[in-house]
Amino acid sequence: MKRLLWGIVFFGSLWLVPGTFAAAQIPVSEATETCLDCHATIHPGIVADWKQSRHAQTTPKAALAAKPLARKVSAQSIPENLLNQAVGCAECHTLRPKAHADTFDHDEFKVHVVVSPKDCATCHPVEADQYSQNIMSHAWGNLANNSLYAQLQRAIIGTPEVLPTGLNFKPASPATQAETCYYCHGTRLEFKGLQTRETDLGEMDFPVIDGWPNQGVGRINLDNSRGSCAACHTRHSFSIEMARKPYTCKECHVGPDVPAFKVYASSKHGNIFSTMKQKWDFKAVPWTVGQDFTAPTCATCHISLLVDSDGEVVAERTHQMNTRLPWRIFGLPYAHAHPINPDTTTIRNKSGLPLPTDLDGTPAARFLIDAATRAERQETLQAICLQCHDQSWVQGHWRRFEKTLQETNNDTLLATQTMQRIWSQGFAQGLASKANPFDEAVERRWLDTWLLYANTTRFASAMAGGGDYGVYADGRYHLRKRMVELEEWLRLQVKLKAAHAPSSSKSKTK
Amino acid sequence: MKRLLWGIVFFGSLWLVPGTFAAAQIPVSEATETCLDCHATIHPGIVADWKQSRHAQTTPKAALAAKPLARKVSAQSIPENLLNQAVGCAECHTLRPKAHADTFDHDEFKVHVVVSPKDCATCHPVEADQYSQNIMSHAWGNLANNSLYAQLQRAIIGTPEVLPTGLNFKPASPATQAETCYYCHGTRLEFKGLQTRETDLGEMDFPVIDGWPNQGVGRINLDNSRGSCAACHTRHSFSIEMARKPYTCKECHVGPDVPAFKVYASSKHGNIFSTMKQKWDFKAVPWTVGQDFTAPTCATCHISLLVDSDGEVVAERTHQMNTRLPWRIFGLPYAHAHPINPDTTTIRNKSGLPLPTDLDGTPAARFLIDAATRAERQETLQAICLQCHDQSWVQGHWRRFEKTLQETNNDTLLATQTMQRIWSQGFAQGLASKANPFDEAVERRWLDTWLLYANTTRFASAMAGGGDYGVYADGRYHLRKRMVELEEWLRLQVKLKAAHAPSSSKSKTK
Amino acid sequence: MKRLLWGIVFFGSLWLVPGTFAAAQIPVSEATETCLDCHATIHPGIVADWKQSRHAQTTPKAALAAKPLARKVSAQSIPENLLNQAVGCAECHTLRPKAHADTFDHDEFKVHVVVSPKDCATCHPVEADQYSQNIMSHAWGNLANNSLYAQLQRAIIGTPEVLPTGLNFKPASPATQAETCYYCHGTRLEFKGLQTRETDLGEMDFPVIDGWPNQGVGRINLDNSRGSCAACHTRHSFSIEMARKPYTCKECHVGPDVPAFKVYASSKHGNIFSTMKQKWDFKAVPWTVGQDFTAPTCATCHISLLVDSDGEVVAERTHQMNTRLPWRIFGLPYAHAHPINPDTTTIRNKSGLPLPTDLDGTPAARFLIDAATRAERQETLQAICLQCHDQSWVQGHWRRFEKTLQETNNDTLLATQTMQRIWSQGFAQGLASKANPFDEAVERRWLDTWLLYANTTRFASAMAGGGDYGVYADGRYHLRKRMVELEEWLRLQVKLKAAHAPSSSKSKTK
Repeated sequence: MKRLLWGIVFFGSLWLVPGTFAAAQIPVSEATETCLDCHATIHPGIVADWKQSRHAQTTPKAALAAKPLARKVSAQSIPENLLNQAVGCAECHTLRPKAHADTFDHDEFKVHVVVSPKDCATCHPVEADQYSQNIMSHAWGNLANNSLYAQLQRAIIGTPEVLPTGLNFKPASPATQAETCYYCHGTRLEFKGLQTRETDLGEMDFPVIDGWPNQGVGRINLDNSRGSCAACHTRHSFSIEMARKPYTCKECHVGPDVPAFKVYASSKHGNIFSTMKQKWDFKAVPWTVGQDFTAPTCATCHISLLVDSDGEVVAERTHQMNTRLPWRIFGLPYAHAHPINPDTTTIRNKSGLPLPTDLDGTPAARFLIDAATRAERQETLQAICLQCHDQSWVQGHWRRFEKTLQETNNDTLLATQTMQRIWSQGFAQGLASKANPFDEAVERRWLDTWLLYANTTRFASAMAGGGDYGVYADGRYHLRKRMVELEEWLRLQVKLKAAHAPSSSKSKTK
Repeated sequence: MKRLLWGIVFFGSLWLVPGTFAAAQIPVSEATETCLDCHATIHPGIVADWKQSRHAQTTPKAALAAKPLARKVSAQSIPENLLNQAVGCAECHTLRPKAHADTFDHDEFKVHVVVSPKDCATCHPVEADQYSQNIMSHAWGNLANNSLYAQLQRAIIGTPEVLPTGLNFKPASPATQAETCYYCHGTRLEFKGLQTRETDLGEMDFPVIDGWPNQGVGRINLDNSRGSCAACHTRHSFSIEMARKPYTCKECHVGPDVPAFKVYASSKHGNIFSTMKQKWDFKAVPWTVGQDFTAPTCATCHISLLVDSDGEVVAERTHQMNTRLPWRIFGLPYAHAHPINPDTTTIRNKSGLPLPTDLDGTPAARFLIDAATRAERQETLQAICLQCHDQSWVQGHWRRFEKTLQETNNDTLLATQTMQRIWSQGFAQGLASKANPFDEAVERRWLDTWLLYANTTRFASAMAGGGDYGVYADGRYHLRKRMVELEEWLRLQVKLKAAHAPSSSKSKTK
Repeated sequence: MKRLLWGIVFFGSLWLVPGTFAAAQIPVSEATETCLDCHATIHPGIVADWKQSRHAQTTPKAALAAKPLARKVSAQSIPENLLNQAVGCAECHTLRPKAHADTFDHDEFKVHVVVSPKDCATCHPVEADQYSQNIMSHAWGNLANNSLYAQLQRAIIGTPEVLPTGLNFKPASPATQAETCYYCHGTRLEFKGLQTRETDLGEMDFPVIDGWPNQGVGRINLDNSRGSCAACHTRHSFSIEMARKPYTCKECHVGPDVPAFKVYASSKHGNIFSTMKQKWDFKAVPWTVGQDFTAPTCATCHISLLVDSDGEVVAERTHQMNTRLPWRIFGLPYAHAHPINPDTTTIRNKSGLPLPTDLDGTPAARFLIDAATRAERQETLQAICLQCHDQSWVQGHWRRFEKTLQETNNDTLLATQTMQRIWSQGFAQGLASKANPFDEAVERRWLDTWLLYANTTRFASAMAGGGDYGVYADGRYHLRKRMVELEEWLRLQVKLKAAHAPSSSKSKTK
C-alpha cells in the first residue's frame, strides 16, 4: 500500500520537475525503489531534492555517451549493474559494503550511512583522484596532527578554567571541535556500534558514529578515505549549479581569516554575478566564457572546465584546486608558495617547527613548489583572466598582488619581531619557555595581525576586491593598528618593569 | 475627474500585474475607491504595492472558502460588510475608529494612520492571538520597563557629557532610542493632537504621533495593542513570500548580538536557499517540504505551517515563535530556558535582579519553562529537521548545540567572576556601588564576552552555521581573547595599585 | 578565415540573446568588425558582454529618436559617422585619438586603451557634465592633494619600518595605493611608452600605463579628464540594470567607514529589494515608481530619473549625486553641509587645515552649501520618499536623522577633546608637535570613533537602516566604548606619569 502510495506520489509530482517527462523514462533499480517506498514519506525533503537531481534524471550509460568535453562522468567504464538506471539511494548507499565500517543490515540491504569519495569514484574517478591531491582533502590531518596548530586550537576553542595563576585552556571538547575548526576541515568519523531505535516500522538498528554529522572537506570516512564530495556538491541534488555559485564556498570562506566570499561579493566580478546571474547558465558542461557567464565565480577560476566561444579549452577541470595557484595566501604565519604535498604534516621549517615558513619569513623551500611550478600555475590561472582582460591589465593586477604578498609578509615580520622581543624580555611566555605561544592577551593581538588582518588584506588583493577589505573592513587599517598596539604594549611593560623592579609579569600555566 | 483618471490608471495598469485579469473582477469598496482617487497619484508606490497584494486580488469570502490547511484567514466569520470586496485602504484604516487615538476626520472618513494587530485580527485572529504570546510582542516593555536594561541602554546609546570625573552618560534622546533599540523592539506611540498642513488639495488636518514612524515588533499602538504585523508582513503587499524569505528577519537579526541572518547565509541551508530560491514556491499554503522548497528559511523552522509530500502536517503554523524553541540562546547574561510569560518584566533572579539568570548562571527557574515543556518544544522543532535528516544526524547536531550552551555559559561565568573581582577590589564600580555596571571601559569588555561573542557562538551552533561564525567571525576567537584581556586588565590594576598605594582608580559618576 | 569564423560565431550565437532577432539588423562599423575579427576569439568574455549590451543592439540614431523622458542619450546631435551603426569597439576606443596619451597604432587603427568620460560625452554630454560636478569625479585629487589626508594615508597604508624610536610609516607604495584608497578614488594614469609583446599574431606594440588597471570614480585619465563611467556602468555591457542595483555601489561602500550597502541590505527597503527584485524592471527609462519597482535602490534616491504613475517627473536624473543631499554624513571629522565645489582641496577651516570642519566641529561655512541650498536639496530628495510615505513619516524620519548628525558630532567633539588633552599633555604627538596625528596607538582609537563608528551610526540613521548598524554592528556600542577607552588611556598615562616623574611617554618619529 505504501509502495502504491509512493508510485502515485512519484508520478503524480513529476510535472513539478522541469523536463521530467523525459525523466519519467529513467528506470529506478528495485533496491532504490524499496528505499523510496519508505523514505519518500519519512524524508520527503531529500527525496524531492534527489528527484530534481541529474542522478535521478539520467543513467550512467547515457552519461558515458556524452561528447568528451561534455562528459560529467570520468570513468572509462561503469559496472554493468549500474549502467541502465538512475543513480538512486541504493546505488550509492550500498556500494562497497565491506569497505564501510558503518555498513548495517537495513531491511534486506547492507547499507552504509556515510558515502565517501571512493564510492563516488565509481563513476567520477578522475575527480576523486584529483581531489585526493587537493590540500583540502587533508584538512583534518593537517590540522589535527600539527603540534603547533594544536596549541593554537587550544588557545581559541579550548575549554577555559581558572587556575591560581590565571586562565588556562584545556583541549577543546569533541563537540566544540566538530562545530568549529572541524566543521570545515572535516571530523574523523568512528563507528561505535549499533543502536536500537523504535521507529514507525518497529525496532530497527542503526549505526552510532562519532563525529557525525559532518561534511567537512577533509573528513576521515569510515572506509578510511578522505573528504566529502557533499561539502560542495550538496546532497541530495549534487547540483553543479550549486557548486559553481559562490554561496557554497562561503560556507567556509567568510570569516576574517579567509574572507573570500566577502571580498568577492564586493568586487567587480561579484557585482556582475549578483546583477546578472539569473541570465547565466550554471549547468552547461563545458562552461563557455561569455556565452554561459560574463564574470567568474569561485569555481570558474579555481575548478571548472572552461572553453572559449570557439569551443577551445581555456582551462581543464581540476579538483586539485592549487593547480591554478602559485601562492598560498593564507599566512602560516607568512604567505608562501603552495606545499608540494597535500599532506603538510611533514613540513618542518628551519627551526624544526611544523610550519611552511620560519618565524623570520624564510620559506621552508624544500617542501614548497619551486619557481618553475609557480610560473606554470600562474599561467594556467591567467589564461582565464585573459578571456576578458588584456595582458597589461592582468600583469598590472598581478604585480600589485605580489607586492602585497611581500608587504604583508613584511608586516608579519615586524609584528613577529615585536612579539619575539616581548617573549625574550619575559613579558609573555612563548615557545622558548615551552608555553603556548598563542594564549596570552598580547599573543592574541599578534595573532590578529597575521591570522586576520594580513590574510584579509591578501584576499582583497588577490581577488581585485579592492577598497574596503584592503583597508577599513579588516584590512590594513586594523593591521597597522594592531602592530602599533603591540609596540605600545611592550613599551608599557618596559616602563612598568622599570618602576617595579623584581616582579614577574605573569606566571604562565601550561 | 480625478476619479475618472484613477479608473484609467487602475484598469490601464492591470496588465502589468500577473494574473490580474482575474483580479480585475475583485470589487473595491466605495470608500477605498475614494482613497485611491487621490492616493494613487499622491502615493503611487504603496498603491502599486497593494495592487500586487493578495489583499487586492481576493475577497475575504473567497479566502474563507479555502480548504482548512490552505486557509490564510483564521476567523470563523468575517463581518458581512467586508466579505465581498478587496481588502483595501479603507477596510483597514477605518476599522474600529473609536479604538484608535489617532483617528481623524479625513475627507468623509474617520481614518487612523497606524493599523494595529487588533485590526488585522478581524480576519486573522488566531495569528494575532499567537503573536500576543510571542515574546516579541512585549519587546517594548521588556526593554523599557527593566531597570537593569535601562542602565545598559544608557551606557550604549545614552548622551555623553564630560563631568570633572570623566564621561557620564545621560538617558538617550527619544530620537536616538527610536532608531536604535526601539527600531526593532518598537516604540511607544503617542497621539499629540492634530496639525494643519497645506496640501495640494488645500489645508488638511493630520495627527501628530510621537514615536512615529516605527514598525518594531513590540510597538505600543494607539489602540493600546502591542506589535506591528508590518514588521514582517511589509506594507502594503503584506506578502507571505517576503515574510518567508530571510531578508525580513535580517532587518533585526544581523548584528553580532543576534547574527541569525549572517550565520544562516553562510550555512548549508543558506547556501541551498541562495542557490535554488528562484525555483521554490514561497507562496504555497500549506508549505510542502521538498516540493515547495528543499532547505529551510527562518520561517520554515520557526513559524510556517508545513506538510510533507503526503499532505500530513509536519508543523502547525505558529506566530508565538518559541513554541518550537526550548532554549533562549540570547544571553542575559546566560543562555536559558525560554520564559513562561512573554512579559519578562516580572522575572527576578535569586539576587532580585530583573534577569532570567543569576550572575553565577543559575536560572531563575520558576519563571522559565520546565524540562517537560522544553522536551515538547524540542520535539516540535526536530520534527522539521527530520524531514531531511535522520535521527542520528539530528541528535548529533543537538548534542553539540546543548554542549555549546553549556560551554558558552561557562565562559560567561568565568568572565563574570573576573568582572566581580574587578568590582570587589574597587577597580571599577558596579551594582554594589550603586553604579552603572556597564559603562566603564573594562565593563564594556565584559559586555563583549556575553553580549556579542557568546551570542554569536551560540547562533552559529544552533543553526549549524558552523565554522567561521563559531570562531573567527565574532565567535570563540574573540570571546576567549576578551576573557584573557579582562584578566590582564585586572592584573595590571593590581600591579599599579601596589606601586601607587593610596589612589582610587576612578571617581565614578552615577 | 578568422573573419568568416567570427561571422559564424556572431550570427550563430544570436539566438542566445533575448530579442536579438531585431539586434541582428543593427549594422556594425567596418572598423568594429575588424576588432571583433580577433577579439571575439581572444577576449570572448568582453565581446559576449558587449553583444548583450544596448550599445550593440541599437544605433545612436534610434536612441536620439526616443521620446524625451525615455532618451538615454543626452546629445542634441551625434556625429554623422556614428549615427547608423552599433556603438562597438572602434566607436569608443578610436574616438578623439589625439586627446589620449595612450593612443597607439594597432592593426590599421589609432586605438586608445582607456576610454574616458569625455569619450562617452559624445553621446552623453549632460551626464558627463553633471558627473564633473560630482564630488566623486574629484576623488583622486581631493585625497592626493590634501596634506592632512596624506598623513592619514601614511598611517594606514604606509610601509612600516622599525626605527630605534619605534615603528615609522613611510609613504605607501604605488601598488598598495592602487589597490586600497585609489581603487575607489581612482588612480592617476600615466603613459610610460610602448612595449613590444609577442602575441599569437606576431610582435605587437602596446602602451604601458602606470596606475592601470583602475576604474575608480575619480581616475585621472590619459586625456586629463576625470573619472570612469565604468565604475558603475561596468564594461562592456554598460548595463543600466547593473548601475541601478545596489551591488555596484557596494564595490566601494561596504566598509565600516561607509557601510551604505550593509545598512541598505538590512533595511526595510533592502528587504523589499532582495525579496522582490526578480519582478522589477531595472531597465525602464524613465523609471516609474510602483510600476517598475516598489522600493528604492541606491540609484533611485541618488541618481535616476523617476516618474509617478501619471508619468509626471518625480526627480530629474542627476549624475551629480549631491543635488539630492544636503548633508555630507562622512565625518571629516564631523558631518557637515556638502561642499560647494567638488574640488575640496581649497577648503580651509578656521585653523587653516584642509578640512571642512574645525576640530571643535565648527563648519568651514564659506566652502559649504548654505541653508537655502540645503533646504532645496532636502526637498528634492524627500519628493522621492513621499511617493510611498506621507509627510509625517518623512518628517519623523528626517528629525531623527538630523538629531543623529548633531549627537554623533557631539560624540566626535568629546573624543577629540580627550585626544587634544592627550596631545597637550604630551602623551602623544599631534599636529602641534609637527607629528602625524593619526599614527600612534591612541590616535588610532580616536580615528575609530569618528572614521568608523560615528560614520556607521550616521549611515544607519540616514537610510533608516535602523537597529543593528546603529548599535552593535559598528554603531554606538563601539563608538561609546572607544570614547571611554580614550578616557581610560589618558587616566592611565596620568597615573604612570605621576609615578615615574620625568620620562617621556614616547619618542615620536616623523
